[in-house]
Amino acid sequence: MCHVCVTEAVKARMLSRRDLFRASAAGAVVAGGTMLGAAPAALAQGAARVVDLTHTHSPDFPTFGGAPGLSFDQQFAFDADGYNLNVLTLDEHTGTHIDAPLHFSADGLSVDELPLSQLVVPLCVIDIRARAAADRDAQVTPDDLAAWIAAHGPIPDNACVAMNSGWAARVGDASFRGDAEGLHFPGFHIEATRMLLEETRAAVIAVDTLSLDHGPSPDFATHYAWLPAGRYGIECIAGLDDVPAAGATLVVGAPKFRGGTGGPARVLALV
Amino acid sequence: MCHVCVTEAVKARMLSRRDLFRASAAGAVVAGGTMLGAAPAALAQGAARVVDLTHTHSPDFPTFGGAPGLSFDQQFAFDADGYNLNVLTLDEHTGTHIDAPLHFSADGLSVDELPLSQLVVPLCVIDIRARAAADRDAQVTPDDLAAWIAAHGPIPDNACVAMNSGWAARVGDASFRGDAEGLHFPGFHIEATRMLLEETRAAVIAVDTLSLDHGPSPDFATHYAWLPAGRYGIECIAGLDDVPAAGATLVVGAPKFRGGTGGPARVLALV
Ligand SMILES: [Zn+2]
Ligand SMILES: [Zn+2]
Repeated sequence: MCHVCVTEAVKARMLSRRDLFRASAAGAVVAGGTMLGAAPAALAQGAARVVDLTHTHSPDFPTFGGAPGLSFDQQFAFDADGYNLNVLTLDEHTGTHIDAPLHFSADGLSVDELPLSQLVVPLCVIDIRARAAADRDAQVTPDDLAAWIAAHGPIPDNACVAMNSGWAARVGDASFRGDAEGLHFPGFHIEATRMLLEETRAAVIAVDTLSLDHGPSPDFATHYAWLPAGRYGIECIAGLDDVPAAGATLVVGAPKFRGGTGGPARVLALV
Repeated sequence: MCHVCVTEAVKARMLSRRDLFRASAAGAVVAGGTMLGAAPAALAQGAARVVDLTHTHSPDFPTFGGAPGLSFDQQFAFDADGYNLNVLTLDEHTGTHIDAPLHFSADGLSVDELPLSQLVVPLCVIDIRARAAADRDAQVTPDDLAAWIAAHGPIPDNACVAMNSGWAARVGDASFRGDAEGLHFPGFHIEATRMLLEETRAAVIAVDTLSLDHGPSPDFATHYAWLPAGRYGIECIAGLDDVPAAGATLVVGAPKFRGGTGGPARVLALV
């Protein structure tokens, strides 16, 4: 980032700070709800664009385990019954979905317990597309995070740090999972995960692949570091090519299943 | 819930403000996504509060038909397997959920096809709590809509018009559904539905009860008028007591199940 860009970024931050004070004065009138720990700049400036970061889920959608994650049982049909209604069989960890802390811990937060303050959050996109195009097992490293911080400033509290490896575009192709020999796709390196845990208050990591850990991971190191710490994950996120590296607000429509370890979510970005 | 408990609950939902989100205004240069037809007022003014309009779903949650809408089959358990994972059996029309046009039409839009421009929309709350307290079969009427318009101006394009009948507070009580004789709860009168269809471009109607039509409806008149027209519904919405009658922005985290007729959604308001 050149000096001119830095100056512009600083100006933008000053503007968002001023807008926040106006916003909070207006919001304080109404009781109830959760104050955002950080008023996202995109909201303060008047978000005008919604980007869908969610893949369409279906029986064909690729899954970590390989078996279909969703099936439909049609109970009522319009012609015969006057309306359509299905009962679904749904694996919590398929489609664009949440990994709640409970997924990899004995008694962590379930998906319905995620705090509201962690569902509408600043979005930080780490672009490793070039490296992943050359190495399907590429990982987000501490250097990648440091480069983002150098360009955009500190990672905000409650942020979602999302890996854009370019994998969302492969979702209709067998290479999304790997090959006949095993799983191959990018993920978060354990050292990057530790850096986020120790040096930031990011609430969420997101990947555009089937797992927070890269395909060949023998030990789910990132899952076991991140989730038991009470933070959560999003897997199979889409659409990251259409949002800026910094400045968007993520709205995580996490399902509210009591005691669930995760589940398909509708994930939107406000830009 | 006594007044002290209500006060404590409200306090618990209010988090103190922390550091500002510092971000650049880089959003404007990025292509893609869907422009909102009209930037909702709450966003333009800088939303600072998130209100959850979603009930927690569970096997106990009341359903229109009476049978459980959700069950869990635990496939992996942390102690034995190192992680927790469930497969769900899920009725599309249970919990806080979407009625897609396809629910009451032969070939209407399925839930994954709802346009993005109808997922982040202005929220108009029609308060019929006083009347519903005296009549459990009360309905939203054209007069209710006219009163809202007189107070707040025209119903915005793509708006969600939501009935607050006070029913969300009864969700743990048998009276949420009715009694042994039948279904009793408030809903939208067909004449109010026709008024919204003919005189507005509202995209969504929402109810805090089990059906868009009131409990004793013999013919699902509102379902059959509204959904085949390509507009959609939200049933069992919660939290409307905590949002203003006008000015909030609804974010509808509709599930993206291919060909689904609806499904549990995470519904949030930005105030
Ligand atoms: Zn998962
Ligand atoms: Zn329904």
